[in-house]
Amino acid sequence: MARIVMKFGGTSMAGIERIRAVAARIGRERARGHEIAVVVSAMAGETDRLVGFCREASSLYDPREYDVVVSSGEQVTSGLLAIALQAAGVPARSWLGWQLPIRTSSAHASARIGGIDMAALDRALAGGEVAVIPGFQGVSEDGSVTTLGRGGSDTSAVAVAAAMRAERCDIYTDVDGVYTTDPRIVPRARKLSRVTYEEMLELASVGAKVLQTRSVGLAMKERVRVRVLSSFEDGDDGEPWESRGTLIVGEEEVDSMERQLITGIAHDKNEAKITLTSVPDRPGSVAAIFAPLAAAEINVDMIVQNVAHSAGSTDVTFTVPAADLPRSLDVLGTARGAIGYDKLVHDTRVAKISVVGVGMRSHAGVASTMFTTLGERGINIQAITTSEIKVSVLIEEDYTELAVRVLHTAYGLDAE
Amino acid sequence: MARIVMKFGGTSMAGIERIRAVAARIGRERARGHEIAVVVSAMAGETDRLVGFCREASSLYDPREYDVVVSSGEQVTSGLLAIALQAAGVPARSWLGWQLPIRTSSAHASARIGGIDMAALDRALAGGEVAVIPGFQGVSEDGSVTTLGRGGSDTSAVAVAAAMRAERCDIYTDVDGVYTTDPRIVPRARKLSRVTYEEMLELASVGAKVLQTRSVGLAMKERVRVRVLSSFEDGDDGEPWESRGTLIVGEEEVDSMERQLITGIAHDKNEAKITLTSVPDRPGSVAAIFAPLAAAEINVDMIVQNVAHSAGSTDVTFTVPAADLPRSLDVLGTARGAIGYDKLVHDTRVAKISVVGVGMRSHAGVASTMFTTLGERGINIQAITTSEIKVSVLIEEDYTELAVRVLHTAYGLDAE
Repeated sequence: MARIVMKFGGTSMAGIERIRAVAARIGRERARGHEIAVVVSAMAGETDRLVGFCREASSLYDPREYDVVVSSGEQVTSGLLAIALQAAGVPARSWLGWQLPIRTSSAHASARIGGIDMAALDRALAGGEVAVIPGFQGVSEDGSVTTLGRGGSDTSAVAVAAAMRAERCDIYTDVDGVYTTDPRIVPRARKLSRVTYEEMLELASVGAKVLQTRSVGLAMKERVRVRVLSSFEDGDDGEPWESRGTLIVGEEEVDSMERQLITGIAHDKNEAKITLTSVPDRPGSVAAIFAPLAAAEINVDMIVQNVAHSAGSTDVTFTVPAADLPRSLDVLGTARGAIGYDKLVHDTRVAKISVVGVGMRSHAGVASTMFTTLGERGINIQAITTSEIKVSVLIEEDYTELAVRVLHTAYGLDAE
Repeated sequence: MARIVMKFGGTSMAGIERIRAVAARIGRERARGHEIAVVVSAMAGETDRLVGFCREASSLYDPREYDVVVSSGEQVTSGLLAIALQAAGVPARSWLGWQLPIRTSSAHASARIGGIDMAALDRALAGGEVAVIPGFQGVSEDGSVTTLGRGGSDTSAVAVAAAMRAERCDIYTDVDGVYTTDPRIVPRARKLSRVTYEEMLELASVGAKVLQTRSVGLAMKERVRVRVLSSFEDGDDGEPWESRGTLIVGEEEVDSMERQLITGIAHDKNEAKITLTSVPDRPGSVAAIFAPLAAAEINVDMIVQNVAHSAGSTDVTFTVPAADLPRSLDVLGTARGAIGYDKLVHDTRVAKISVVGVGMRSHAGVASTMFTTLGERGINIQAITTSEIKVSVLIEEDYTELAVRVLHTAYGLDAE
């Protein structure tokens, strides 16, 4: 017997037929003797509908009231899943964010979970009841409904698993695990049986959309074992659970024998490149660029400063999320006097390609393989960033798929 | 300055454009210096959609979880109206049932309001904030979400008005007041400027669909002045508020000069007639009929017992709500041995016509006018019931409109 959290996304909740299939799956897991809490998303499309209402009511909507409106989507699916579970003979009840409670900060629409009271939940689980918990929502200290921001249901699931000291947190989604790269680009991509939190964080932050970055960070901090698996596959009966999906765990749980130098190749087309030309090459000029961007909460990623021109000025290039490009241009336009640049150039036709793997810490040559491989295909590298377990390059967007394919082969990731 | 409750139904909440119109109306009322609480229904059609989900999930759905699901409709409109009010420059916030709280019994899907805590609401109103409250919902002592049953939002509004000691409770609906009879049947029906609680109760219970019976009963008990008026009429600016809609008040507030002998004529086609033939004419035989119906919570209305046949047996006729007819026939079939009747006959092609007026207490002849008027048109009376302020007769359904028209004229209710 173990404690398990099962989390189902909006596609799994889209309509009563699917909710009934989810109930059946939970019933099978419970029949193995586990204590189970379930975290659910709203029906696919519902959150967008509710957000649309808020925007239509006012472009400057009050985030407190926005949370009242949009949290209703998960409330509905929680009640419906509890009904479907009972109909399948599984004792169940729903626990809304304010009922447990799931305590959060009061930052409406992007609240952070502070803690989850376990008293009621412990009693329910000990009594053999499945606890159905709406994801994405909580309650602030002053008793207001809060939400965690888009994709927050994964974070709710991990937080519930941490509070329950669950053996694992199973995230059912519309893919069957984490792959070495996007299988739509590389058909020979391999499903990974295990990845480390660090690798998953890097993969998630560079465009692998399987899990929300924040939920991975929380899982790493709380040491929650997270499994990603498909909600549309059957046949989990009999099979050992370890053989399905991808398990995201601490490095100590990844067998060194099975560990690859490189875990995966990710790509991200949602970046925009900005170049400021002829920035004065003197102390403080770089700060003059990035301080106002930071103040506007724009996340700057790759930064390249060219060697100084003869005239004592330099070009500075960096990337921002494409969605923040208009605001970034605004901010930099306003700060032109303080920075003293010549031209402000931007380009959204770029892609970031990242090579990720905990193994690279102990191996030289990962970056040079990357540069050589791309160079041989005539792919020009516009910027580079590295972390302990990642090397990212910025290239022209048209080369994205080609770059991913040649790197996947170069690092020996292609399936046999 | 006064405290006022404004209640808006599902048609007024159907879409952001209408919610914005509601916000503008509230803003105008607040500009007069009033302290305002608003009670809202779900968007038209939304509750049906949510109830449909529950039924689809299980025909025997858990009413506790049903309440979690269906209460979300009013949660959404509360948040959206608060946003629309703020956008119109009116300070506002939503207060969900569990936040005030609105304390109810734990009878899920048909809970009764026990009380409403005023501490938070008093502070909000004193601070000039409009309080937006979802109708239909509350919270039970054990902290579960409850709902009051269909149409419960009117009851929520009256309960809030009672707790606030509001000067009046304005119910905005899709009709512009209470009429002497259904204007679709009698074009010369007159809008009533005032009716008493007792009259409104009788009118509501016999088919005038303007207000839910339960809300009128609560208003009478708590002495809340209720006004029914249209949410689709403009031009309330400048006009004294008393001149719009219909005010429902205690008898002492209805000027004896303007008081009519008869207030209105109502009709109800949702009754079914049941006759048991040759029931033994002995003590206890009537109890043997109605005890099992009462046990099945079937509401028996008009009862007629014919004079005894020569053979010491009698026919018993009564009405039940048409929706309860199949269950009633079941119950009576099962009890046939205990009752000892010969045949069980039923008829749904009947209508109940009611003449209502507090004035009739002090006047003889109301009933005889009714019987004479119907008799002159050859309309046969199948059963009769009377209360202090109402006379009802059961007739063949085909004569409904004719009966309403001739009675409306006979009691002098036609507009000039």
